Amino acid sequence: MGDTVKRLAVLGSTGSIGQQTLDIVRAFPHKFRIVGLAAGRNTDLLARQVAEFKPGLVYHPSAAERGREALPPGEYKLLSLEEIARHPEVDVVVIATSGAVGLGATLAAVKAGKKVALSNKEPLVMAGEIITREAALNGAQLLPVDSEHSAIWQCLSGETQPAAQIILTASGGPFRHYSPAQLEEVTPEQALNHPSWRMGKKVTIDSATLMNKGLEVIEARWLFNVPFDDIKVLVHPQSIVHSMVEFADGSVKAQLSHPDMRIPIQYALSYPERLANPRLPRLDWSTITSLTFEPPDLGLFSCLRLAIEAGRSGGTFPAVLCASDEVAVELFLSRRIRFVDIAGLVERTLERHRSIVHPGLEEIMAADTWARERVKQLITKG
Amino acid sequence: MGDTVKRLAVLGSTGSIGQQTLDIVRAFPHKFRIVGLAAGRNTDLLARQVAEFKPGLVYHPSAAERGREALPPGEYKLLSLEEIARHPEVDVVVIATSGAVGLGATLAAVKAGKKVALSNKEPLVMAGEIITREAALNGAQLLPVDSEHSAIWQCLSGETQPAAQIILTASGGPFRHYSPAQLEEVTPEQALNHPSWRMGKKVTIDSATLMNKGLEVIEARWLFNVPFDDIKVLVHPQSIVHSMVEFADGSVKAQLSHPDMRIPIQYALSYPERLANPRLPRLDWSTITSLTFEPPDLGLFSCLRLAIEAGRSGGTFPAVLCASDEVAVELFLSRRIRFVDIAGLVERTLERHRSIVHPGLEEIMAADTWARERVKQLITKG
Repeated sequence: MGDTVKRLAVLGSTGSIGQQTLDIVRAFPHKFRIVGLAAGRNTDLLARQVAEFKPGLVYHPSAAERGREALPPGEYKLLSLEEIARHPEVDVVVIATSGAVGLGATLAAVKAGKKVALSNKEPLVMAGEIITREAALNGAQLLPVDSEHSAIWQCLSGETQPAAQIILTASGGPFRHYSPAQLEEVTPEQALNHPSWRMGKKVTIDSATLMNKGLEVIEARWLFNVPFDDIKVLVHPQSIVHSMVEFADGSVKAQLSHPDMRIPIQYALSYPERLANPRLPRLDWSTITSLTFEPPDLGLFSCLRLAIEAGRSGGTFPAVLCASDEVAVELFLSRRIRFVDIAGLVERTLERHRSIVHPGLEEIMAADTWARERVKQLITKG
Repeated sequence: MGDTVKRLAVLGSTGSIGQQTLDIVRAFPHKFRIVGLAAGRNTDLLARQVAEFKPGLVYHPSAAERGREALPPGEYKLLSLEEIARHPEVDVVVIATSGAVGLGATLAAVKAGKKVALSNKEPLVMAGEIITREAALNGAQLLPVDSEHSAIWQCLSGETQPAAQIILTASGGPFRHYSPAQLEEVTPEQALNHPSWRMGKKVTIDSATLMNKGLEVIEARWLFNVPFDDIKVLVHPQSIVHSMVEFADGSVKAQLSHPDMRIPIQYALSYPERLANPRLPRLDWSTITSLTFEPPDLGLFSCLRLAIEAGRSGGTFPAVLCASDEVAVELFLSRRIRFVDIAGLVERTLERHRSIVHPGLEEIMAADTWARERVKQLITKG
């Protein structure tokens, strides 16, 4: 049994996905062992996690600056995200970081041939071509953690042919039936109150603008090698059907569950096995009477349209999309712009970008930096 | 490519499933070849099928009695159903017969280690223990053709563990919301008018009484080795979700399609491949706005309850269930009993039956004969 314990590094361990990953590890101490932890801001929580799981490998930015006294004593090495991601003692790297910060670690893990449980969308969106190429070259395995991509992955299990069509479901967010005028008045508090999922702040705002769904379309294109024309978005407010796959013969498979991120997290960790976990909720068909579906409103939610266009255009456009959205969401959360201005800022940044075809990592990071600067210029110039 | 042509025998080729199987064969002449055909009553259609597909092996009861002049000339042998089912030139035996008649052929095919595409429910219901044991012993493969069992089979594809729960969906039939008084007035014409599926007469009546769903529960128990406690029936009037499987981790997979039997027939024939077939309909998500679910009314539709009870009791009870239902449905179609009397006759026959534990084939056939006689006695005695 000892040989089958999977050694995990969780990058972003204090965020929502990181904490839920540790919940799964707690439930199966004979299946999983935490050997690496990494977090950005929440030093207190990281310290408690280090005390509990006693990882040998730790990353924390302030610890690196202020020395070891910022963290509890222990037998661990302080390393960079990339060093943990490629460390020989790690079997599975859980990329639960937020925004562009996970890109370097994802690439390091993929180049080291690791199993990479990917919850952070931006690495694949920004550098999907590079990451999937390096994964194939180095025998790395990308294990989707997002509920939608986990659903697609589960539906493709055992199939001998690729998907004919992917149907990505979207809750539609809290403002699904708002008028344009109502959307102008949306506050950060309203936007952070997602109807079906508990998530981090950035992804919750992205869900409200439908930017999140657009990033997922681009992610699906790279994870499952399906052209954009064969990826459809369908609004499904109950968040029970997490996505669907249509096959060449017209048969469709769907994956359903209670909206609880621990289910796709656990599947990514336990794959190809499934583990009976009494802490995970089960669907109760005596209470589910109707599952509804409707097309997304691309006019009202232009972030979805912008993301799909950026994905189709390729090059460094997706990196600019991610970076400008990341800055715009921060500006909205700090009440410096309105909810509807997020899409406007992203669009104006994309319009001004000169993309590079088949960019390398440095060109992608340069586009990221350019876009962040550009959004700030747009704001200060008005 | 020549080596990969699958050689098919279609038993029950003039029935609904048989004709649709031939439609699939017509669409893929380089994938499938008809080497055997068998039909009961419809001699004219069988003659046309023989002229078109030129099978080497044919069964027809009247041809056997009246000699070859009853069928068009050709280079075929007249054989019994069992002889065709185990013939060395046959790779896949499609059991598209109706009622108990398919049992002998199914057993012959399984003992000969064939791939057996099974649409006829009664063989597995009557003799599931024998058929699954012989299939395992002889390396035969049971390929479900029923839309529900095909759905479950597709959902289990690639999974390393058995289902934790099977959710069999049911359209609910045309009388889903009828009152007991309304149900008493149902005519054969009304019962033959199924809301979503085009099928043969026997299975259409069984769908209206929900007996069909009960037979499917027993079938699922044998096909997927899942205990009765873990098989649930859920009414889904749109007939788009064809069934679902819940796994140990709370994740559920569903298979969906337009209600068209050619989709599961083609999957059984092409498995593990899927074939792009432009003649098959695809789901149109711009028209599907709601999928609804409700529990079945076991009080009103007592055939479902009777079937599950007979399945749990095992022995020769399921054979008595099938035989008494087959006779009762014929009596209803010939207007000798009312719709609601079908369940009553089945129940009274089951009550009087003395079951045998782990019966052999002869004991099963004896129970079948006993039940048919018993129903007729009940009718004549009133």
